[in-house]
Amino acid sequence: MARSGIGDRVEGLHSVTAAVAAGRVERLIVESARAPELTELMTAAEHAGAVVERRPDITDLAVTGAPQGVVARCRPISPVSLDAAVAATDPAALVVLDHLEDPRNAGAIARSMLAAGVRGLVVARRRTAPLGATAFKAAAGALEHLAVTEVSSVAAAVDRLKRLGVWTVGLDAAGSQSLFGLGLLGEPVAIVVGAEGRGLGRLVSERVDVVASIPLRGPVESLNASVAAALGVFEIARVRAER
Amino acid sequence: MARSGIGDRVEGLHSVTAAVAAGRVERLIVESARAPELTELMTAAEHAGAVVERRPDITDLAVTGAPQGVVARCRPISPVSLDAAVAATDPAALVVLDHLEDPRNAGAIARSMLAAGVRGLVVARRRTAPLGATAFKAAAGALEHLAVTEVSSVAAAVDRLKRLGVWTVGLDAAGSQSLFGLGLLGEPVAIVVGAEGRGLGRLVSERVDVVASIPLRGPVESLNASVAAALGVFEIARVRAER
Repeated sequence: MARSGIGDRVEGLHSVTAAVAAGRVERLIVESARAPELTELMTAAEHAGAVVERRPDITDLAVTGAPQGVVARCRPISPVSLDAAVAATDPAALVVLDHLEDPRNAGAIARSMLAAGVRGLVVARRRTAPLGATAFKAAAGALEHLAVTEVSSVAAAVDRLKRLGVWTVGLDAAGSQSLFGLGLLGEPVAIVVGAEGRGLGRLVSERVDVVASIPLRGPVESLNASVAAALGVFEIARVRAER
Repeated sequence: MARSGIGDRVEGLHSVTAAVAAGRVERLIVESARAPELTELMTAAEHAGAVVERRPDITDLAVTGAPQGVVARCRPISPVSLDAAVAATDPAALVVLDHLEDPRNAGAIARSMLAAGVRGLVVARRRTAPLGATAFKAAAGALEHLAVTEVSSVAAAVDRLKRLGVWTVGLDAAGSQSLFGLGLLGEPVAIVVGAEGRGLGRLVSERVDVVASIPLRGPVESLNASVAAALGVFEIARVRAER
């Protein structure tokens, strides 16, 4: 099966509204019974050149559990080069996802990134949660605004980021330094988030400039990947605001 | 249907392991094919007095999508009084969930709370995500370590917290003050987290001492409820560490 494009299927009110605003929606399919509350969205989609269709039931079309009466077929988001992702925030600020498994986490991380003003997202092309309908729904529109890069190897991407003058900080409970107050977050920086349960891959962990941890004050082994990433991107915002 | 007890069904390796350690598991049901990798858990459960059963397939027993080969029937967690939840952290630190809808968010918030050292959790008895198998799985064991209070009215609980000398801080994107650096997080404090999408209820919003917001640096309306709560509890930890 060919890999589908990033964001070619979007579901749920917030995510579809953002995709329409981004001019990506080609076909909007609305559940008839929900249509009266979705007239604004349908009008916007028509103005943006989309075909709008009503169906009695969209359940079979939806990938996510609660599409809220609307699914969209879209022109995929074009991935950018790593250089472009580095340039998306000034000073550079990126999140690198090291083979996350849960697309809801990937989407939630995108939402936190945009909220914190961190716009470069690096994801692996394979063996990772796809940026499909589930991730887009969790992102609540945020993926429309990020510069997304796909890479074959996260470890190689870390090396390239370092050559581009970007500090790389891996998040891991075993990290020797605290993430909080880490001075180099004020410099061009990429935070690398490990997979749920497994954490950072060994090759990645060996390559990053710093392995930083979030201080834990209770009997927990680790944080949810999306929570760890959120603390990371908001720490970037905080360190930069204090300068 | 009678409301089931908090945590009477637990699924997934981490959550069940924590429930066994808490001495709550009465019956452990393991999928036969996964049993070889679960021997340690089965032994611990037997030592704790649980009946251990193997079945060829546990899919029909599981509420969550990925029970990882193990489900448990448990003695429910006993809710505590609001006073006890206030006393669980010194100075008092609580999270009040104002009718969250997604049990995964409730569980993830519990996990963040324990990691940040915030141990009092206040939830509504009705019209809210139940603390069932899905919440316990997302909590990865954390709910075993929190002091959980159930209340009939979140607004009334806010009033009672104030009378108990606990500052109440509602999280809302419309808040007038920034959550970051908020001095009263160093005092006895409860953070009130609104429902996904709808935010804080009006009655609750009117009653809290402060409505605080998380500064947003991109075109997003709000944060994921679990992310907002995590930033809140880790801000409590930070403010207290700096004193």
